[in-house]
Amino acid sequence: MGDLLTATGDLMAVPSLSGREGPLADLVEAALTACPWLGVERVGDNVVARTALGRGQRLVLAGHLDTVPPVDNDAPRLDGDTVWGVGASDMKGGLAVMLDLATTVPEPAVDVTWCFYAREEIGRDESGLLELWQHEPGLLAGDAAVLGEPTSALVEAGCQGTMRVRITLRGVRAHTARPFTGRNAIHRLVPLIERVATWEGREVVLDGCTYAEQLQVVAVEGGVAANVVPDEARVALNHRYAPDRRHAEAEAFLHELLDSTLEPDAGDTWEVLDTGDGAPPSLGHPLLRSLVEKSGSAPRAKVGWTDVASFWEHGVPAANFGPGDPLLAHHPDERVTRAQLERARDVLRALIT
Amino acid sequence: MGDLLTATGDLMAVPSLSGREGPLADLVEAALTACPWLGVERVGDNVVARTALGRGQRLVLAGHLDTVPPVDNDAPRLDGDTVWGVGASDMKGGLAVMLDLATTVPEPAVDVTWCFYAREEIGRDESGLLELWQHEPGLLAGDAAVLGEPTSALVEAGCQGTMRVRITLRGVRAHTARPFTGRNAIHRLVPLIERVATWEGREVVLDGCTYAEQLQVVAVEGGVAANVVPDEARVALNHRYAPDRRHAEAEAFLHELLDSTLEPDAGDTWEVLDTGDGAPPSLGHPLLRSLVEKSGSAPRAKVGWTDVASFWEHGVPAANFGPGDPLLAHHPDERVTRAQLERARDVLRALIT
Repeated sequence: MGDLLTATGDLMAVPSLSGREGPLADLVEAALTACPWLGVERVGDNVVARTALGRGQRLVLAGHLDTVPPVDNDAPRLDGDTVWGVGASDMKGGLAVMLDLATTVPEPAVDVTWCFYAREEIGRDESGLLELWQHEPGLLAGDAAVLGEPTSALVEAGCQGTMRVRITLRGVRAHTARPFTGRNAIHRLVPLIERVATWEGREVVLDGCTYAEQLQVVAVEGGVAANVVPDEARVALNHRYAPDRRHAEAEAFLHELLDSTLEPDAGDTWEVLDTGDGAPPSLGHPLLRSLVEKSGSAPRAKVGWTDVASFWEHGVPAANFGPGDPLLAHHPDERVTRAQLERARDVLRALIT
Repeated sequence: MGDLLTATGDLMAVPSLSGREGPLADLVEAALTACPWLGVERVGDNVVARTALGRGQRLVLAGHLDTVPPVDNDAPRLDGDTVWGVGASDMKGGLAVMLDLATTVPEPAVDVTWCFYAREEIGRDESGLLELWQHEPGLLAGDAAVLGEPTSALVEAGCQGTMRVRITLRGVRAHTARPFTGRNAIHRLVPLIERVATWEGREVVLDGCTYAEQLQVVAVEGGVAANVVPDEARVALNHRYAPDRRHAEAEAFLHELLDSTLEPDAGDTWEVLDTGDGAPPSLGHPLLRSLVEKSGSAPRAKVGWTDVASFWEHGVPAANFGPGDPLLAHHPDERVTRAQLERARDVLRALIT
């Protein structure tokens, strides 16, 4: 067992922006290939290593190789028991834990698939995980999966779905000196945005985890010229919905909430831009229940969308568990501590041995 | 006296987009120079012709040579008693009337300054009228002025002021899965836009003309990314204020109306983008009073900003009076009728003879 803080810094020292994970994938592949108990396969910049011990169950441990662009924090900085910089918590700390266990536990109690994949931080259709399912679906087969995303080494169960909707309100152009000859589409935004802003939210408890739904306006635009009453205004909404609903139900809810502020006869339109269903906590699965027990803490709901949903879509119950504060992901102050790294390693080691 | 409808079509056949008035200015200059009773001066693409009869009063009749870009209506189209096309009402009809009178009334009862100027339809700081005031201010001296903008051959008195203000509201960025850790700046727009949209307006009666003030949101923008609670939202407002106020008072009014929806401590900002004071009706002036009498109709307030305000700024009371429907200016259906042209000519002829 090496020092996990140093190992995390070593991984951070190899830049791996989305789409440029090649050098980091090389490094990971080399480390795994050195372990005679692992069968290693590389697909693009994805690396998958598997034990083949004939155990009754197989656990997939997965983490993404890429990071978001740095915010003046591209060089890792070690300070005492903490390493700072882009990717520290999201998720080179998690990768360091995975690599450490993969290379030091030759005979786990369950078969283990170690999956290091590319392009998680960009559009879902570019995901390395998708590439694997398309080209080598058997590589990702398993009874359950753990995503090493930062969760402060607690189990964050399932994940919420996400949906983006664009709504366009119409008006009638006019000169601003005579607005009564037109209709201001931006003024029409008021009841719509108000409805979104004052929605009290819906909370759902599943397997003891509370999923709090959210609804936010994430973009607004409109305007023709300085002296023109605008005839169009657009908003984009992001709805985060609990995993007891799928996208059709989530969209129906949005219609119920907002339709009275729209006038289809005036030309108002509604468009679902994209959607990604979540995943239920699945904490009844023996491997995930065991993960919760080993973690020693109550599980909580994952509110952001993660690839737990991708695994669930392929029939594999999954949970999030990794070192580092999820609130610091993509943050200029991103960092992880040695204590978090070691705690995550100890829990996962207990789970697989 | 020629046929004004044909003359308007002839002027329309010479394209004169803002900044490209040279050929039309050449044509106008040639027509005026042929009149021995006129002293003609050209400054850039502005042409000024003046009588020098030693009358007790001097009236300035002014019109702009340029048009806005055509909307598939660049070629003039004569149909019965109507000519259609860009510039028909704004304001080659008015120019045709001015040219007709300038070249057929050698001995007006008041001295007359005929001013044909460039670049009215674009930024005020590029105006040909400004160029004249800067380089040959004496050319524009007069006791009163009439702007030949389209008014349906009614007197549209004075003009309202206009002011644009940009307001920026701040929030705190957060992930949309955890919006409670931030503050949505777009959601904060609701009370601000609502205040603007529901303002009941202020009406001011001056010299019997009712100036109805207006306030409109003309632009809105905000948004960071699809999964980010936005930390900034911006609106631009256009306020049209009656000529009993100047810009400082208009801005104070806007502050009074809107300040309670802003939080300077949160970083909200307020910026006046541009402003143009209006002009009072000045219908007490003998020449403008006479214009109203000759027009045979009650005057009404001009609600849009025009160069009446520029003349007023230089101490010259002015009014708008010209052929053509002002609501068709800049409109794909722009047109003017022979009856309007002749009516405008008759009224102005009566005024100066």
